[in-house]
Amino acid sequence: MISRVVFGRGSFSQLHDVLQPKRLNVRAPFIYIVDDVFKGNAWVTSRIPLSYDDEILYISADEEPKTSQVDALVEQIILKYKEKPSGIIGIGGGTILDLAKAVAIMLTNPGSAKDYQGWDLVKNPAVYHVGVPTISGTGAEVSRTTVLTGPDKKLGINSDYTPFDQVLLDPELTKDVPKQQWFYTGMDCYIHCIESLTGTYLNAFSQSYGEKAFELCKEIFLDNKLSEKESQDKLMMASWHGGMSIAYSQVGVAHAMSYGLGYLLGTKHGVGNCIVFDHLEEFYPEGVTMFKDMKKAHNIELPQGLCKNLSDKEFNTMIDVSLGMAPLWENAIGKNWEKTITREKLRALYEKM
Amino acid sequence: MISRVVFGRGSFSQLHDVLQPKRLNVRAPFIYIVDDVFKGNAWVTSRIPLSYDDEILYISADEEPKTSQVDALVEQIILKYKEKPSGIIGIGGGTILDLAKAVAIMLTNPGSAKDYQGWDLVKNPAVYHVGVPTISGTGAEVSRTTVLTGPDKKLGINSDYTPFDQVLLDPELTKDVPKQQWFYTGMDCYIHCIESLTGTYLNAFSQSYGEKAFELCKEIFLDNKLSEKESQDKLMMASWHGGMSIAYSQVGVAHAMSYGLGYLLGTKHGVGNCIVFDHLEEFYPEGVTMFKDMKKAHNIELPQGLCKNLSDKEFNTMIDVSLGMAPLWENAIGKNWEKTITREKLRALYEKM
Repeated sequence: MISRVVFGRGSFSQLHDVLQPKRLNVRAPFIYIVDDVFKGNAWVTSRIPLSYDDEILYISADEEPKTSQVDALVEQIILKYKEKPSGIIGIGGGTILDLAKAVAIMLTNPGSAKDYQGWDLVKNPAVYHVGVPTISGTGAEVSRTTVLTGPDKKLGINSDYTPFDQVLLDPELTKDVPKQQWFYTGMDCYIHCIESLTGTYLNAFSQSYGEKAFELCKEIFLDNKLSEKESQDKLMMASWHGGMSIAYSQVGVAHAMSYGLGYLLGTKHGVGNCIVFDHLEEFYPEGVTMFKDMKKAHNIELPQGLCKNLSDKEFNTMIDVSLGMAPLWENAIGKNWEKTITREKLRALYEKM
Repeated sequence: MISRVVFGRGSFSQLHDVLQPKRLNVRAPFIYIVDDVFKGNAWVTSRIPLSYDDEILYISADEEPKTSQVDALVEQIILKYKEKPSGIIGIGGGTILDLAKAVAIMLTNPGSAKDYQGWDLVKNPAVYHVGVPTISGTGAEVSRTTVLTGPDKKLGINSDYTPFDQVLLDPELTKDVPKQQWFYTGMDCYIHCIESLTGTYLNAFSQSYGEKAFELCKEIFLDNKLSEKESQDKLMMASWHGGMSIAYSQVGVAHAMSYGLGYLLGTKHGVGNCIVFDHLEEFYPEGVTMFKDMKKAHNIELPQGLCKNLSDKEFNTMIDVSLGMAPLWENAIGKNWEKTITREKLRALYEKM
């Protein structure tokens, strides 16, 4: 879990005070990994405190984060600075936050990021790392994973060293998120709740977090009674609670299948989840009905026909990636999931998308 | 915030696995501070892993924890062992958990515990410390304070080093809590929610935690539809969320006045809060009405007449302690609280109790 958290509209201005005591020495820089949508946006960048050799790396979040991208960033930092950074600060959505977590880990662990995709493979504590979400829903700010696309698989680096040491939650930073992205990313949280609350791994801990996140999603995406600011505040908390819920349970069918789309087609996680979830009435009847209501309420048209021209080999790749996510299927269906989740079943579902 | 948490019925059996990697060396013991109600209870004690010089200190929770008690425990540990302990593990309710937190802090900080009552006075990180609650409601397992009665005041050691490094939440450990204590301690959580949710310090972070804890309290103490096990699980989570809610906001009138009772009369925190809250319709009309319904549903008779034979001097002592809690009053009433919260007002309220 996250050791320290600051919450509040405008709290981004406190970043300097948060980081200052953590500087190791003047040659150990803070490296900011920042979504490149903020390049030239002085409202954000003027509040990023830069001293000595501190540096901002602007990164595009158009593509899902890759292990090779992490390796390249780590090499760049190691070659440029004589000392390990004082800290890595991610400022962005799930892609940027996951990159920041992975870079912080790989600065203190040998080899390539792909060697650590899995559970509890990280041996050494990461460099101090801070997460500042600028879009809400993924739960990346609170999770103990960092989901990366590697040469062989799309899988997280799940470890006790992955979570941020410090998170700064400033809902004001989400004010300019484009509507579609707001919806898709928010739905990542909604889908976390449905998958966690209906899963076989559920316990009272995850349930209490999942129920709260679900309620908040309903208030935000369906009830339509909140001011814009309230909605931003509450979605940031929904993301947090949804992330906590799955940290102690597991996600399910939508995530298992969405990873297949992401691996093969590079589909971004948020929209990929929505495309999949839209076809999962069989597994989550009430959840999918409410999702369709939410889509309608916000005039969201999902991309169609992603899989229509795929070859058998490509379908098989997606199916392999998806079936590889055993804990997700077991959470969703139970221990005997392999009896009902056949290759044919997944092929038929993917063909609809 | 708590870095690591384990949740689950029966998870107390994992204590060995949790602690083992944290042993510094064979001469650095784990010291268990355990509520003496568990002395001779093999169901609990047989699962406390003891190796090398590890030791169990059984402590009575009949009285509220004192700074002098913390100092004595620390001296006892320092005199007996050549090395600093590998860890301090508190197993009990709020009193025991607060003692464990305070001892862990005072093992690495000079002077007396009373020197650290206040906000952010602790300079050095505490010894590794673990909390295992055996009664739910206080939120001591999650808070950044440890409330102690000192020579001059009843006030917490509030610091970034106070929270436990690890918490183990096993709701099964609460199964033998006597009914009155269950109610009073559960109401500590309920009152946290009311005070947080109606306070002027409220923000979306605290609100989301407070609302969830409030809902859980309602399910447990009023709706009466839960099995015994569900009720234990949910009350442990209510305590957690209630604690999180006040960690990022503040408590209010009931706590401010209850500290007065506690300081002068030694009234235990849980029952003290109930005695006070029962008379606070003026401040918390809906909350107090629901509290009275909960009392009725569980046939709880609160102690009466605590203050009937007190001298003026004694009333003044309570009033001084209570008025000293400025942040609590400001949260409850607003910046101008001193205009309405007069000595006469508090005297009249205490006289009813």
